[in-house]
Amino acid sequence: MIQPRTLRGFRDYLPDAMMPREELINTARRVYRSYGFAPIDTPTLEYAEILLGKGSDETDRQMYRFEDHGNRDVGMRFDLTVPLARFAAQHIGVLGTPFKRYHIATVYRGENTQRGRYREFMQCDFDTIGTKSMVADIETALVIHDLMTAIGFDSFTVRVNNRQVLSGLLEKLDLVDKSTEILRALDKLAKIGPEKVAEEMQQAAGASAEQAAQVLKLAEIGGSTDEILSALDSLVSGSEKGEIGVGQLRELTQAAAAAGVPAERLQIDVSIARGLDYYTGTIFETFLGELPSIGSVCSGGRYNDLASLYTNQELPGIGASLGLDRLLAAMEELGKLEQRTTPAEVFLAYFDENSLQQYLKIAALLRKAGFNVELYPEAKKIGQQLKYADRRGFKVAIVAGDRELAENSCQLKDLKTGDSKTVSLAGGAEELIAAIPEILRGTA
Amino acid sequence: MIQPRTLRGFRDYLPDAMMPREELINTARRVYRSYGFAPIDTPTLEYAEILLGKGSDETDRQMYRFEDHGNRDVGMRFDLTVPLARFAAQHIGVLGTPFKRYHIATVYRGENTQRGRYREFMQCDFDTIGTKSMVADIETALVIHDLMTAIGFDSFTVRVNNRQVLSGLLEKLDLVDKSTEILRALDKLAKIGPEKVAEEMQQAAGASAEQAAQVLKLAEIGGSTDEILSALDSLVSGSEKGEIGVGQLRELTQAAAAAGVPAERLQIDVSIARGLDYYTGTIFETFLGELPSIGSVCSGGRYNDLASLYTNQELPGIGASLGLDRLLAAMEELGKLEQRTTPAEVFLAYFDENSLQQYLKIAALLRKAGFNVELYPEAKKIGQQLKYADRRGFKVAIVAGDRELAENSCQLKDLKTGDSKTVSLAGGAEELIAAIPEILRGTA
Repeated sequence: MIQPRTLRGFRDYLPDAMMPREELINTARRVYRSYGFAPIDTPTLEYAEILLGKGSDETDRQMYRFEDHGNRDVGMRFDLTVPLARFAAQHIGVLGTPFKRYHIATVYRGENTQRGRYREFMQCDFDTIGTKSMVADIETALVIHDLMTAIGFDSFTVRVNNRQVLSGLLEKLDLVDKSTEILRALDKLAKIGPEKVAEEMQQAAGASAEQAAQVLKLAEIGGSTDEILSALDSLVSGSEKGEIGVGQLRELTQAAAAAGVPAERLQIDVSIARGLDYYTGTIFETFLGELPSIGSVCSGGRYNDLASLYTNQELPGIGASLGLDRLLAAMEELGKLEQRTTPAEVFLAYFDENSLQQYLKIAALLRKAGFNVELYPEAKKIGQQLKYADRRGFKVAIVAGDRELAENSCQLKDLKTGDSKTVSLAGGAEELIAAIPEILRGTA
Repeated sequence: MIQPRTLRGFRDYLPDAMMPREELINTARRVYRSYGFAPIDTPTLEYAEILLGKGSDETDRQMYRFEDHGNRDVGMRFDLTVPLARFAAQHIGVLGTPFKRYHIATVYRGENTQRGRYREFMQCDFDTIGTKSMVADIETALVIHDLMTAIGFDSFTVRVNNRQVLSGLLEKLDLVDKSTEILRALDKLAKIGPEKVAEEMQQAAGASAEQAAQVLKLAEIGGSTDEILSALDSLVSGSEKGEIGVGQLRELTQAAAAAGVPAERLQIDVSIARGLDYYTGTIFETFLGELPSIGSVCSGGRYNDLASLYTNQELPGIGASLGLDRLLAAMEELGKLEQRTTPAEVFLAYFDENSLQQYLKIAALLRKAGFNVELYPEAKKIGQQLKYADRRGFKVAIVAGDRELAENSCQLKDLKTGDSKTVSLAGGAEELIAAIPEILRGTA
């Protein structure tokens, strides 16, 4: 006999974990589609040469890589960005631009699992490719906002920044050559404080004390969106790049407000930097008001050229990725996940073997009316059946023995309160169809 | 520069292929859930020892197998049945029985692609585990029926058989030891005709001419469900197994009729055999009325013991699998797939850069009303934008230039007919929200 077990870093999803996952994916899909993003999929396996060297050294090392049956060097995708780049380069002629896609799929990284990370996880990306228009940046912010509210969060903040603001400032300060070192130091601000950051800027990047102080001014900027924008205006004044960046932040925040996004949900945060090499304009991170410590649950930004490794055609774009697993972990921690193991609300007890056809008819009528109904498959003791129904998380139970069926009626039981009432089956299931929603709404 | 390409046997799904795929998956999910089946997922990668030897020699050979970063011998799943067996053995204590699950996931087989097969494809299974009750068999038939109608097929036949009927007959004829050879011969009936089959039964299985003739009687049985059942009654009479099998077919067809399944959609077909070793009772295949030649699009059956390789606990069950790719191929051939590359119905032209905020407001109001709306990101010539909208398959376009917006109105264009009318934007988008569905329904 073989021991049933999963590989380290991989996991089974039982119904209680899979149901909220499916719901979250459906919500994301619905919101993406409402903005005209279309679904695509790409293979799990790709030529290794397509995948290698497109992420980081770390992703290269973590990639599951092997020889296939035809001795090809293949790898399992470790993200959805590299496959998108390959896909866009290959198909953009057919797809046309602007091309708006979402891609919800599993990716694989043979990484160290000690950080509580998994080797197989799902990504949930959306991107607009082939346009530099700020409309795409604005809509990305709106999608993130709608996504978070559709999932059920009231309190969250989409933090937005623009890489050109910092680039402009560094240009103005003659520090362009040292951007990476400056950013690396700035990134430690929350951890080590401004003095140490200034020190590091001077030592590692060769900045003067005055230059370091100027860069740090950026991090001190706060207040309302208008206040931040005017502080940024003066800070970058004279740098074309910086002025463009601030202008884009202004356009984005004003347009989002016009589209109905409350100011507290979209805030400029000049301290976020993200993917130093990849992003070139607008960047986003999203934090939960009730659990900011879990980190950004939806991040992304604008890039100049998606697929330069596979095509000469310039493909600018902007996109973001919903952190599905992180979000589910947060929802669990916040008690936002219902503990159920059935997708059906209605449990139909199997009381009397001779009445099976009647049970099947009742179930069929209820399903036609839009309810999810499970008929228990065995005529076990009713107490045992109701215990099963309760444990799985059904909302109502229908119990009909010979006596009830002879009277053309059934018992409808609220599994939460334990209340039960007699409902007539005369003329079909009309009365049941009316009575069940009252119990589901808690207004019976 | 690296040539962007996919591996042989793998494919990209562009939006026109991915959208109907997503819709089909959603339909399957909805139907499964309506019967109380709950979703699960298992890892793509498993220990090779879990996967090997559980399918056939062929699946073993086709399995993608390699050493992972921890030098473990791992494989990519080649179906969802083996992972289900491992999953059930591992978790049945927590899950409890009856356990009804669906699993929609990608599987991998490094097989010969010359037959038009793919090395990565999706399976869409549902199973009821832990009960021998015929209720589960009946519901499996009902799920298949509801699934086919929900997908949009009117004309199809679920063919049902019961392995015990044939076993009983062979028992009665003293041919049990030769079951495999007899079945193998019988399986060729349509191809080589009854005389050659009888010959093979005599040569390969050592049956007498009389025995072969008796077995072939089975294949001659036809007529209405009642006629078939009474012919089977006399054929198996005296064999306990055979009588049980016919009794189960009778119970299943009668119950399905009571639950509303038309007789022509559920037919007994004693010629279907399926998976000689695996199935032990009810078996199903499903054929499209308009395209039977494409083969069964939903098949399955009852098995005695799902997970005997991983646990001593006996886990009987029944399930079936929707042939997603085959069904999509059939739908394409039958012209049932809409040719669109956008999930949005409403195209909002971007006419005037100064009016962006107004466009964003209109789009937000329409999305709130449940429409999928794409705002074109660039203020290009209107002809170019409408050409884009037409090519992608949008249904309506909203065009609002300075003049229209100054008058608080817009043009609403039916992209199918080319008709256009002026709609007021006074007080929001109420008039648009009323007018768009008329065009979508074709009743404008």
